[in-house]
Amino acid sequence: MAKVKKQPRPKAETPKGFRDYFGAEVTQRSEMLRKIAQVYHLYGFDALETSAVETVEALGKFLPDVDRPNEGVFAWQEADDADKGDWLALRYDMTAPLARVFAQHRNDLPVPYRRYAMGPVWRNEKPGPGRFRQFYQCDADTVGSGSMASDAEICALLADTLEAVGIARGDYLIRVNNRKVLNGVLEATGVEEDGQRDAVLRTIDKFDKVGEAGVRELLGKGRLDDSGAFIDGVGLTEAQAAPVLAFLTSKGADASETLANLRSAVGESASGAEGVDELEEIAAILNAQGYGPDRIVIDPSVVRGLGYYTGPVYEAELTFDILDEKGRKRQFGSVAGGGRYDDLVKRFTGQSVPATGVSIGVDRLLAALHAKGRVSKDAAGPVIVTVMDRDRMADYQAMVSELRGAGIRAEVYLGNPKNFGNQLKYADRRGSPVAVIEGGEEKERGVVQIKDLVLGAKIAENATLEEWKERPSQYEISRSDLVAKVREILADQAGEQA
Amino acid sequence: MAKVKKQPRPKAETPKGFRDYFGAEVTQRSEMLRKIAQVYHLYGFDALETSAVETVEALGKFLPDVDRPNEGVFAWQEADDADKGDWLALRYDMTAPLARVFAQHRNDLPVPYRRYAMGPVWRNEKPGPGRFRQFYQCDADTVGSGSMASDAEICALLADTLEAVGIARGDYLIRVNNRKVLNGVLEATGVEEDGQRDAVLRTIDKFDKVGEAGVRELLGKGRLDDSGAFIDGVGLTEAQAAPVLAFLTSKGADASETLANLRSAVGESASGAEGVDELEEIAAILNAQGYGPDRIVIDPSVVRGLGYYTGPVYEAELTFDILDEKGRKRQFGSVAGGGRYDDLVKRFTGQSVPATGVSIGVDRLLAALHAKGRVSKDAAGPVIVTVMDRDRMADYQAMVSELRGAGIRAEVYLGNPKNFGNQLKYADRRGSPVAVIEGGEEKERGVVQIKDLVLGAKIAENATLEEWKERPSQYEISRSDLVAKVREILADQAGEQA
Repeated sequence: MAKVKKQPRPKAETPKGFRDYFGAEVTQRSEMLRKIAQVYHLYGFDALETSAVETVEALGKFLPDVDRPNEGVFAWQEADDADKGDWLALRYDMTAPLARVFAQHRNDLPVPYRRYAMGPVWRNEKPGPGRFRQFYQCDADTVGSGSMASDAEICALLADTLEAVGIARGDYLIRVNNRKVLNGVLEATGVEEDGQRDAVLRTIDKFDKVGEAGVRELLGKGRLDDSGAFIDGVGLTEAQAAPVLAFLTSKGADASETLANLRSAVGESASGAEGVDELEEIAAILNAQGYGPDRIVIDPSVVRGLGYYTGPVYEAELTFDILDEKGRKRQFGSVAGGGRYDDLVKRFTGQSVPATGVSIGVDRLLAALHAKGRVSKDAAGPVIVTVMDRDRMADYQAMVSELRGAGIRAEVYLGNPKNFGNQLKYADRRGSPVAVIEGGEEKERGVVQIKDLVLGAKIAENATLEEWKERPSQYEISRSDLVAKVREILADQAGEQA
Repeated sequence: MAKVKKQPRPKAETPKGFRDYFGAEVTQRSEMLRKIAQVYHLYGFDALETSAVETVEALGKFLPDVDRPNEGVFAWQEADDADKGDWLALRYDMTAPLARVFAQHRNDLPVPYRRYAMGPVWRNEKPGPGRFRQFYQCDADTVGSGSMASDAEICALLADTLEAVGIARGDYLIRVNNRKVLNGVLEATGVEEDGQRDAVLRTIDKFDKVGEAGVRELLGKGRLDDSGAFIDGVGLTEAQAAPVLAFLTSKGADASETLANLRSAVGESASGAEGVDELEEIAAILNAQGYGPDRIVIDPSVVRGLGYYTGPVYEAELTFDILDEKGRKRQFGSVAGGGRYDDLVKRFTGQSVPATGVSIGVDRLLAALHAKGRVSKDAAGPVIVTVMDRDRMADYQAMVSELRGAGIRAEVYLGNPKNFGNQLKYADRRGSPVAVIEGGEEKERGVVQIKDLVLGAKIAENATLEEWKERPSQYEISRSDLVAKVREILADQAGEQA
């Protein structure tokens, strides 16, 4: 007899680099995003939701004449007889779709256009621990205003947003720098050759890691790194390197001192002077609004993103300590960043349109809220009405109806009710605060048993027999008192957790 | 001189069949979904968010050995040296990912597992007017319970959800049918050949369109359709067709009459009797919970989805009339549907796991709320603080700070302030309720001008000069009264709109 070849079963797995989010993971994030949206809305920003899918042409980074234009993005070609279908891709950020939207709808949109967007983006990158290929972004941008007031506004918005979601004043700092100042510094070095300029930029990017002394070495002859390898330097003279080091270390005791240091670092450069003027204007506006240096500060040591942006750059850092995976204290670090990029839609329209905006790292901010205990640990589990008699399902359903009517999360056990232990195990897995029990005997007497599962678990862990007798975790009450008693127990539990 | 070939500019367009959602379109939908999630949560359902991307293998409909496995879905192959990368695809619904999740995490999930999911899904279909290739779904399912109590629960959940988002009792009806009853009916016809059975099923699907007489003809010799074409019949005898027609028209004055009619329609069929028993159990549970036939009703004429599901089937219809595009009255129709499908994870695990659930058509339900005037027409525009003197930006920013501090949506005009008319045009485009004006002269006197833009627009449309004088739409107030006066105007406007 011929063997029937068995079709192998499909694997029940997410694709590599993707994951599922359960229960509180979902609701905590959406609650945080809702609070952020409220602040964005208060500032006059309008919601925008673009589709996940864009043409590769509109996204702009990838060219259809490449064989597989999916480096970095998830892309595919539309089916088409002549194999000339459009290449489509999943958006990799919120900014590229914003550029497309503004170019497409520019005659209908108010200008300046303040918009916020929140949702997943996708990156076709090698996944790693904690690195996923789908993650949330939450952006606010103002398109069509070159005014420094819009940059100042974004900084204030960011501060208000962090406080609205639960980061206390003093636990965060928004640091502002300016790409034009850096341009002025580059002019002041006298370095003109593009390759050498790029090398200086790359070195500045390492300031966070290697500090002032490290940057000095790397701008000059080179440096032995921690592993003992020698890193070639850019080869600047001391005099050439001086403006760069002055720039990176120009933070003074207050904004006016910092600005004076920056003016000296950029020397005669017109672009540099413009950048310092811009920072001065931002500082003045924020000051008038009451955002002092305890919240927003001019800080030229912020170098992340300086290569990408064209004007002011901002970064939100959380300044409290957490323990890293090795138990060492370290600052929580950056949760949002942004800046001005003045050529947003030029690719589409040929016209320069100024824009500035910020992107919040949703997962990092949520992790910070967890670290500060500002997120409820778990969504409350439902009250479980157990099933003692499967023919009286209607009775049990009536109970949950009453509880829900009173705003209490509740459900009937819907598995096989034969084994009562399984029902309590299920309640445990759900994190249920209360179980309701009504057997035939109780039904006859018009009573129900109410089990306080939180107290029960505590007693099981800690209590002496005396305590247990004094504070029983199970109560027999009249059926008509069901809602009142459950409400009372839930209130007690909430009080004890607070 | 050789001509420099110009790179053509990219088109600023969404891909075919995709669209952007602006402002209130986004916030109204998320507000509706939030209300739905609250009801789902109250019923003990837990949130689940899977990634947009699944392996084609897990989705299950499409085979990797087909050259382009993207019929109906957006799919692509992971880059891989040997061209053996996994095929990935965007999810086309929420049920296939649920099956994958349950199979993958079955040892960690509570069983029964009640979960809800809301988010976009993607279909690679030919787009048409009002037909998009990305749209929202909002599902609630219970996996691992074969109890009719879980089907009854889904129906009650659906009724509560519709009322929570703003569909009044009486404006909707949830209709329940059962696939097993249909199986019994098929047995009662005596039709055994698969092809003929399928033909009967397809005919039943046309009941909504052609009615009892039409189905009778189509089950028999055939029928002339509206266009004059003759549609061949299935070729059943009158006696064979009788149970089918009895089934479709078995709705009685109340549930017990309907159930009696169904019992007679299924004759001796065991499966049919089981289906009628199930409907009876559902009706009893819902009745005990107070969900009468004004909300949920056994209705065997519901045939949509009967081919797909294995047990009870439900559909939520909105029963109020709207005018269609030709101005004719018609019922709004279906906004949600679901049923029992008892082989959810068998493909993955080989084990049968019962499941039942419902999917709400998010866009249709939102359209219904619009039709009933249950959605605020537009998100309120922000108060606009105009810029009369660009050197006093800090003053204007301080004003919006104060307004926002009082919870009032407000912004400074950030465009070029030279032309004041443009500022008011911008305010108009934003739907701003109020404009604030403070020129140099006002600043000196310590006052600001407050313009009621809603009243102003009304006056411009309708008022006589006398009325205009009596009810000026612009007020000069002390700078210190800014927040109080704006609040007063907004309250007046809200009162008049109500």
